[in-house]
Amino acid sequence: MRVGIGTDIHAFGEDRECWVAGLHWPGERGLDGHSDGDVAAHAACNALFTAAGLGDLGANFGVDRPEFRGAAGVTLLAEAARLVRAAGFEIGNVSVQVIGVAPRIGKRRAEAEKVLSEAAGAPITLSGATTDGLGFTGRAEGLAAVAVALLTPAPASRAELPADHGYAG
Amino acid sequence: MRVGIGTDIHAFGEDRECWVAGLHWPGERGLDGHSDGDVAAHAACNALFTAAGLGDLGANFGVDRPEFRGAAGVTLLAEAARLVRAAGFEIGNVSVQVIGVAPRIGKRRAEAEKVLSEAAGAPITLSGATTDGLGFTGRAEGLAAVAVALLTPAPASRAELPADHGYAG
Amino acid sequence: MRVGIGTDIHAFGEDRECWVAGLHWPGERGLDGHSDGDVAAHAACNALFTAAGLGDLGANFGVDRPEFRGAAGVTLLAEAARLVRAAGFEIGNVSVQVIGVAPRIGKRRAEAEKVLSEAAGAPITLSGATTDGLGFTGRAEGLAAVAVALLTPAPASRAELPADHGYAG
Repeated sequence: MRVGIGTDIHAFGEDRECWVAGLHWPGERGLDGHSDGDVAAHAACNALFTAAGLGDLGANFGVDRPEFRGAAGVTLLAEAARLVRAAGFEIGNVSVQVIGVAPRIGKRRAEAEKVLSEAAGAPITLSGATTDGLGFTGRAEGLAAVAVALLTPAPASRAELPADHGYAG
Repeated sequence: MRVGIGTDIHAFGEDRECWVAGLHWPGERGLDGHSDGDVAAHAACNALFTAAGLGDLGANFGVDRPEFRGAAGVTLLAEAARLVRAAGFEIGNVSVQVIGVAPRIGKRRAEAEKVLSEAAGAPITLSGATTDGLGFTGRAEGLAAVAVALLTPAPASRAELPADHGYAG
Repeated sequence: MRVGIGTDIHAFGEDRECWVAGLHWPGERGLDGHSDGDVAAHAACNALFTAAGLGDLGANFGVDRPEFRGAAGVTLLAEAARLVRAAGFEIGNVSVQVIGVAPRIGKRRAEAEKVLSEAAGAPITLSGATTDGLGFTGRAEGLAAVAVALLTPAPASRAELPADHGYAG
């Protein structure tokens, strides 16, 4: 088994739609970034990648792969899960805490967990925390997320064996 | 198995007793908050709740449950452990790092680990870290904690089976 | 099994060589501290110690053990791994994320993972993240790292059994 950790932080911006934890939050300030700024989805990706030894968001969705420029957090998460499985792991679960004053994850937790879990094909659970007014999250300059992931080695499947492996099932 | 993560942050306040990691720290500045401000116990609760998919401190000890208003960190931790077990998990362990300049966890680590572990009914280990003077913890404006938890599915017990399950033991 | 968490933060300093994740980074600003300021190695040590219930960097490499004063991060990591094994655990893996603007871990990730994994005798994986210009890491005042570790109980070996155990192998 492998455990992994990942974080993500984005600053709030002007004239941006707010996407956090795979959900659109109408009326909330949005987050800056080349992507949709979904810190929860990005932290989950980072935890998965670090656990599997595949690097980070930049290594996997950077300039080499322009098709992911501006992609939604759930799109990145689905692709991260695919890459982790292709590297020989099954995903046990991912746990994410969103840190900041808004949006309040607790209001729509079940909905967000469903969207993220479907994207990853594995249980993703969410919680929220505030910082008692301290730091950049307490001053509402930005939103942070931290995530941990648990992976298990995938059992060898027929699909992964070479074509001439002679396995008769 | 499930892994979970949780954080907690409180600002130092005036005329507050200091409670951190289940212990009273005479002579140290206390932490603000509706509760006792025990960031270590609260981070442990958050890690347990997030791992189990039960939300966070606010969801479990908020306005719906006024009996926990102002409760001690260890009281919340014991209740968090009970809720996680009621949801079908056993608690493997919880690991907590307290981040800030004071109180210094290392001085009373064994004592704190004992109190927290007894509250949770599972091993809770502690460590401390400073931030080299950086950020709100480095300026001693507040104290932070981050925790991870490992859960296992509880084996089905006779007590949890329906009364008419027909299991003859 | 046991999961653990650890963090480390150092401020950038003047006239310091930069050592991060077990590597020398020529031309990058170095980090202050009594040690080499290697936040990635130190966070990994803290995660290992906290998981095993052995305290933290200060408890293990403080004034009681002057031979570790100014030691390289990888030296501390190797000793931390030895202490964790001596306490009866095997190290499953350690996952570390370095948070800040420089050095950019992604450029030399494979090299750093090799050096750290060899020091610990177990897989250590790395990733990097930035904070969108926010906080002390975003202002390049310091560098942070956060790590998680997974431990398993060591199987009893002949070496650990008492001399008169009567085990004939």
